[in-house]
Amino acid sequence: MSQPSSSEFDLIRRYLTGLGAVRRDVLVDVGDDCALLHVPADRELAVSIDTLVAGVHFLPDCDPAALGHKALAVGLSDLAAVGAEPAWATLALTLPTSDEAWLAAFARGLGDLAAHEDVRLVGGDLTRGPLSLTVQVHGLVPRGHMLRRAGGQPGDLLCVSGALGDAGLALRHLQRGEPVDAYLRQRLERPTPRVALGEVLRGVASAAIDISDGLLADLGHLLAASGCGARVELTRLPLADQVAGVVAANGDWGLPLAAGDDYELCFTLPAAHARELPVLAAAAGCPLTPIGTLEAQPELCLVLADGQPWQPQRRGYDHFTDA
Amino acid sequence: MSQPSSSEFDLIRRYLTGLGAVRRDVLVDVGDDCALLHVPADRELAVSIDTLVAGVHFLPDCDPAALGHKALAVGLSDLAAVGAEPAWATLALTLPTSDEAWLAAFARGLGDLAAHEDVRLVGGDLTRGPLSLTVQVHGLVPRGHMLRRAGGQPGDLLCVSGALGDAGLALRHLQRGEPVDAYLRQRLERPTPRVALGEVLRGVASAAIDISDGLLADLGHLLAASGCGARVELTRLPLADQVAGVVAANGDWGLPLAAGDDYELCFTLPAAHARELPVLAAAAGCPLTPIGTLEAQPELCLVLADGQPWQPQRRGYDHFTDA
Repeated sequence: MSQPSSSEFDLIRRYLTGLGAVRRDVLVDVGDDCALLHVPADRELAVSIDTLVAGVHFLPDCDPAALGHKALAVGLSDLAAVGAEPAWATLALTLPTSDEAWLAAFARGLGDLAAHEDVRLVGGDLTRGPLSLTVQVHGLVPRGHMLRRAGGQPGDLLCVSGALGDAGLALRHLQRGEPVDAYLRQRLERPTPRVALGEVLRGVASAAIDISDGLLADLGHLLAASGCGARVELTRLPLADQVAGVVAANGDWGLPLAAGDDYELCFTLPAAHARELPVLAAAAGCPLTPIGTLEAQPELCLVLADGQPWQPQRRGYDHFTDA
Repeated sequence: MSQPSSSEFDLIRRYLTGLGAVRRDVLVDVGDDCALLHVPADRELAVSIDTLVAGVHFLPDCDPAALGHKALAVGLSDLAAVGAEPAWATLALTLPTSDEAWLAAFARGLGDLAAHEDVRLVGGDLTRGPLSLTVQVHGLVPRGHMLRRAGGQPGDLLCVSGALGDAGLALRHLQRGEPVDAYLRQRLERPTPRVALGEVLRGVASAAIDISDGLLADLGHLLAASGCGARVELTRLPLADQVAGVVAANGDWGLPLAAGDDYELCFTLPAAHARELPVLAAAAGCPLTPIGTLEAQPELCLVLADGQPWQPQRRGYDHFTDA
């Protein structure tokens, strides 16, 4: 017996319902005109929306499970940057055809990360069109404790989590048809949002931002919001061996500084908290590296090992100037 | 002096910041990693996400101001269906090029409706790719007072707001290259979300749904959720003269029943409230029309003037079976 083609509602019911954690604060789930959510009186609501477009943010033949993971991870990284505890997500998915195997894998990838981070998918929309996906994340922050881009002060220690440039190097290999090792591929396709770090930094960091557009561009936003400059010592940047090898070979720091797609946090620690860095790293479960200090002069100085300044060619990925 | 091409951040700052109403419950607006919002302790949060894709939901040469209006109206209609008071929106916009005149008009259309409905645009994402736009709306509902699809009971009066089939007829004219009168064009391109009606129906209606997929499909969802059937008298459907003329000419009720894109509400009134319909219509500021009754038998019967049943050919627009 031949199957009728699945309708939009069938597909939503079969693949996009019941994803992620069960949460008592979800009063109405997928399936009404709206989801209904309970925000505790001592919490404020943090929201962020992001779109991934095939051919722009990911290769069209990308593993759909990895894409499901990444679509949510991108939003969770924004929640991490403000110190929010992830709670709910909504998904607007645009697909060229109703490829059920693709949809099942995508839903599994998204659902696994959602369950791991205690997030419930509470609503969605499924439309036909060029492949793209938009996820809105919702998180909860104790009242008055959001981490902001503003707040950095001259003398604060400037730090980053994880390692920089991994995703950019993986993408470069993929675009050139070269083999990509498992570590780099994981960093490009299944980034780990630094959720625990964001929560640990609340009340400790003076400013924070996620560096998905590349350290230079996003640090620039943090400095502009804080009204400061910074001195960054390039030799202190945390780099995986693969990335360090490329930088050593070509002398170009653009890969760790501007390639983007690194879902790490950049944050500033007042001098009084600077010694806590190892304790914070242990609590957050990820490496934290001091890379410089904030300065009163509103400039960003990138300094080589010999103390000479280094001038970048580009500051980060931009959709409408790099097009 | 030539202008450099505008970057994503410039475009967001210039066109997508400060749109809509100023609200004291917006603690952090566009420009950090997340927006931060305050939900009062006596309210619950209603959210809905929808995507409009060029060539699927609108013609690519559609007036951008109208598109801005409609992108938000679609979401506000979902809030209306659950009786929520609109509060905030986020926008994920994907554009093929940085056409600033287009973006300015789009922002004006969205911003005007947002200001009118007391909505603040609190976050956004701007990416390059095939034209599409995703809006998430956030609304507030007094605790325990959300309107649901479930809750309809046999004997309840079945009602709809406004008129049906206008948008479908306007689209038909446009697709055939025929002239479209101002009323029909307005109904297709600048629908009025029934926000006031949703608020009026809280605590009165037993069930409600928005009928953007067409009355047949969406009433079907309401009936399934309520575990009822319904008898609908087709001659009672509220139709503009233009739509009534088409139905009279071809005998096909598909236009008002299944063409979709009507941002009206369908709702059920317990018998005890049936006489209040004119009062509710006055309070909501839109026509409300009884079109039938809910029945215990789980079937939807569409009845012609002579009492004979009428069988539809299709139940509503579906992205993956109508493709």
